[in-house]
Amino acid sequence: MRVIVDAMGGDNAPAEIVKGALAAHGKKNVEIVLVGREEAIRSAAAEQGGVPDSVRVVNAAEVIEICDDPATAFKQKKDSSITVGLTMLKNGEGDAFVSAGSTGALLSAATLMVKRVRGIRRAALCPVIPTAAGQAVLIDCGANAECTVEYLVQFAYLGSFYAKRMLQVKSPRVGLLNIGAEPSKGDDLRRETYQALTAAAEGGELNFVGNIEAKEALKGGCDVIVADGFSGNIMLKTIEGAASFLGGEMKKMFLQSTKTKVAGLLMKDALRQFKELLNPDRIGGTAFLGISRPVIKAHGSSGAAAIENAVYQAAAVAESGIIADIEANIDSMRLSSHREG
Amino acid sequence: MRVIVDAMGGDNAPAEIVKGALAAHGKKNVEIVLVGREEAIRSAAAEQGGVPDSVRVVNAAEVIEICDDPATAFKQKKDSSITVGLTMLKNGEGDAFVSAGSTGALLSAATLMVKRVRGIRRAALCPVIPTAAGQAVLIDCGANAECTVEYLVQFAYLGSFYAKRMLQVKSPRVGLLNIGAEPSKGDDLRRETYQALTAAAEGGELNFVGNIEAKEALKGGCDVIVADGFSGNIMLKTIEGAASFLGGEMKKMFLQSTKTKVAGLLMKDALRQFKELLNPDRIGGTAFLGISRPVIKAHGSSGAAAIENAVYQAAAVAESGIIADIEANIDSMRLSSHREG
Repeated sequence: MRVIVDAMGGDNAPAEIVKGALAAHGKKNVEIVLVGREEAIRSAAAEQGGVPDSVRVVNAAEVIEICDDPATAFKQKKDSSITVGLTMLKNGEGDAFVSAGSTGALLSAATLMVKRVRGIRRAALCPVIPTAAGQAVLIDCGANAECTVEYLVQFAYLGSFYAKRMLQVKSPRVGLLNIGAEPSKGDDLRRETYQALTAAAEGGELNFVGNIEAKEALKGGCDVIVADGFSGNIMLKTIEGAASFLGGEMKKMFLQSTKTKVAGLLMKDALRQFKELLNPDRIGGTAFLGISRPVIKAHGSSGAAAIENAVYQAAAVAESGIIADIEANIDSMRLSSHREG
Repeated sequence: MRVIVDAMGGDNAPAEIVKGALAAHGKKNVEIVLVGREEAIRSAAAEQGGVPDSVRVVNAAEVIEICDDPATAFKQKKDSSITVGLTMLKNGEGDAFVSAGSTGALLSAATLMVKRVRGIRRAALCPVIPTAAGQAVLIDCGANAECTVEYLVQFAYLGSFYAKRMLQVKSPRVGLLNIGAEPSKGDDLRRETYQALTAAAEGGELNFVGNIEAKEALKGGCDVIVADGFSGNIMLKTIEGAASFLGGEMKKMFLQSTKTKVAGLLMKDALRQFKELLNPDRIGGTAFLGISRPVIKAHGSSGAAAIENAVYQAAAVAESGIIADIEANIDSMRLSSHREG
């Protein structure tokens, strides 16, 4: 799998991006293409013994910054690493694209250049979050602040395909994120989506388990959490905030006294595992589901390890058959089909 | 302060409710009135040596159940503990009302029987959540799934008064819960509310600090988090879920081996403090702000300790002057006043 990596995106570009991408090169059947300012890439790679001959470096002189208008940046900066990289993806010069750059700019560029799968209304972000029972796909978590019933129904399918193909869940339990379990709970959007998902489930295409509250979702009550991008983002950022807060309090707890410091030493291995559980670098990135080719957004603060994982994830998405799933099922994913049926 | 307690509401009614209410009686200047099935109350109190003569018990033969329609239950069950208790509150036979019963039924009953302060569009739930810097008021967190700009502006004021009077914050920093910091972020509701809150802040009445992401809010970035009831509830339940999940993982961590078990013993005191931090019973209940008299909702799963704290909180709200604050500032809280000004 040939993975195109945006060497210029993210807080730690290009050094950590180049380091992480080169670490993945040649492993797990991955071949890397680096896109960005060639000089900066080669100088960043010098520490790793330079860029191997087998890695293609494609020069792109411009960089899309966080302050650029996300909707138009890719057009205004035609020679940016995102624009050049996505053009290559579109033209088949690579199997997937990874960037730690601006989410908004990447989403606009992917949507307008690479395009959505025909029939998909909106692309969505679908991070995998840890739960007490393992993990769950949270879709959407920020790409679409305002959603319609059809978007949410499509997110349910997209998330379900992702859980099947990437997390090896046979019949993913799809829950609609809501503020209560009963069908009458929430706002009009939730009540109508509940009905539409129930109809979709009757066709046997989705395993819809009903509304799910955030607390139950974190207990592992479903494998796919369907949300509008606003509340999905609130959930995701609250998890991050709560983990960071409790992690900090735990650290304080171990530093309270000599006794607790000794306890900390005894706990060293267990604490490392605990930290790993909260480590956002574990998974690496978030797929933009609904785009016709694999595009992975790595966290803006990604270090080399996170980028390396995002590259493997990108290759896995490209190999998984998710996009073929979407194309094959697009008729069921149109809201009209359920209404007629 | 005379606090009327619904003895029949909640998972542990009447035993734990009666126990908690009687524990508060006579302390911190609190006098208890118990409302519910008199026989059940007296039999529950038998363990605590019976109901003291100074505690009034008011018989109410019916109980509003979770399965009753929240909007109409208080009318259909005129002799329920909620209906009888709120009638007493309205008539001045008590200074505040506490119930661990159905949130929806309590809210409908309080709104329609006790009424909102004149000019207040919607009552809101405002739990106090822990943050890395101390605590913050989250308003609304579930009463109003669908909100207008004016509701959110009023929540900002209500939360601000609560933080001033109940948490002793001099000039509470008010943040609008959003998925990014810039004024352009989020949906139309957030963009318009941002403008309205900015206008309100120019009048010097509110200390609006702008949009706040959930993660920053948990770091302590503001004292009042303004949200529609849908996303506020997602935030609240995600905090609960994440705390329970991480608490569970921590427990596993300490049970891994003999070494970690020894560490657990060394950490005993520190762990107790950590647990206390996550203990939802600490604060007790959530005020319904905007109602013309103090109504406090205790958690459905409240035990005696939570009820005791909810009673103190109810007395504190009644003494605080929050309702006078709202009445005195209601003109600024009407959206038209900002638009005209």
